[in-house]
Amino acid sequence: MPYDSSILPDVSTLTVGVLGGTGPQGRGLAYRLARAGQSVVLGSRSPERGAAAAAELAALPGADGGPVPGTVTGGDNALAAATDVVIAALPYEGHAETLSTLRAELAGRILVDCVNPLGFDQRGPHALAVPEGSAAEQAAALLPDTRVTAAFHHVSAVLLTDPGVAEIETDVLVLGDDRAATDAVQALAARITGMRGVYAGRLRNAGQIEALTANLIAINKRYKAHAGIRITDV
Amino acid sequence: MPYDSSILPDVSTLTVGVLGGTGPQGRGLAYRLARAGQSVVLGSRSPERGAAAAAELAALPGADGGPVPGTVTGGDNALAAATDVVIAALPYEGHAETLSTLRAELAGRILVDCVNPLGFDQRGPHALAVPEGSAAEQAAALLPDTRVTAAFHHVSAVLLTDPGVAEIETDVLVLGDDRAATDAVQALAARITGMRGVYAGRLRNAGQIEALTANLIAINKRYKAHAGIRITDV
Repeated sequence: MPYDSSILPDVSTLTVGVLGGTGPQGRGLAYRLARAGQSVVLGSRSPERGAAAAAELAALPGADGGPVPGTVTGGDNALAAATDVVIAALPYEGHAETLSTLRAELAGRILVDCVNPLGFDQRGPHALAVPEGSAAEQAAALLPDTRVTAAFHHVSAVLLTDPGVAEIETDVLVLGDDRAATDAVQALAARITGMRGVYAGRLRNAGQIEALTANLIAINKRYKAHAGIRITDV
Repeated sequence: MPYDSSILPDVSTLTVGVLGGTGPQGRGLAYRLARAGQSVVLGSRSPERGAAAAAELAALPGADGGPVPGTVTGGDNALAAATDVVIAALPYEGHAETLSTLRAELAGRILVDCVNPLGFDQRGPHALAVPEGSAAEQAAALLPDTRVTAAFHHVSAVLLTDPGVAEIETDVLVLGDDRAATDAVQALAARITGMRGVYAGRLRNAGQIEALTANLIAINKRYKAHAGIRITDV
């Protein structure tokens, strides 16, 4: 059937955790979700830095200029992992290790992997080979009891964290093998003004979505843009 | 600088060859280019089938209902390779072998590789591992004297070949290491009503663009669509 966000579940009462919530991508997603009214728990390796980043985000203006309507708290990554939907916004270097240590906390939960395994050299960004095929498949291999999805790879941290930007004009490609989990993540993406969550295939097709970030960086450089993606005819 | 198609070269007088021009993707691109007024040479393994497919295309209606304004002729792949810009719309299975036999004909020319190395099983499409990293890099390795680019991976053959479809609403991601060649291919894409050609990185980042076709097939299946891509903020 055609795309219809009204068939997606209501996720407005779910609490969202962000692993690596002090990095630009995690911080930006946490801000936009809190601005949409979502309860967010920012995680960091250091509980003090997680709490401090949460306090900073809670003080940013919401869409109407008042405080963000959602609740933002913070602590260590284990605190952020004990939520309904957990976004892994980790650097690829620490991805496998951090997820391994959180296996118990993440059991039964929905994980949203948004990690882009990229290398950079004098010719720019390029995709790194991941033994499991993708960061998302690495997460699934390390977390057999977790409902692993992949999404939010291509959002611009610059736009997400700028309170003056009203809409984030992009579709979020959502991947995974668990239909209820991908539906929930699509609904979460649609909470952010301007975004749609579009199902884009099984987890085994996540590698190219992660690597596509290298192309968007090349586009941004050539056109001085913060490029996003829209899927046409959907 | 921002995207500006007016800085791209005039390619309206160039002749475009299509290797594998009797397949759905090659045939569709040839039709749209001829409809835009371009001279097109359709290639096939069999010169008779190439000529017959060209005659069929030339008889299709143009945008105004009259005959297509461009010239369409056809023959074997070697004939199509002796043109200004050569689109390789080959099945991946025959890609390396066909290009190898055309090395002399393709020397000095612009090649546009639009091959998607995909496998299919009961769970749907998935990316195939290509030893060179991508079909486009395989082409570059086999054709050291050719200006290899990659583009037109995500166009829907169904839409391209339907004379009733007025616009093809998609951006064409163009990859390559030769700026003048990628500029020409961007300009060629922009000849087709509704399309833009957007530079999207070096050839080493072509693999994920080819593999992304698997995701678009998953999107098409879920949403009963002919999905395309638009790059936002460009």
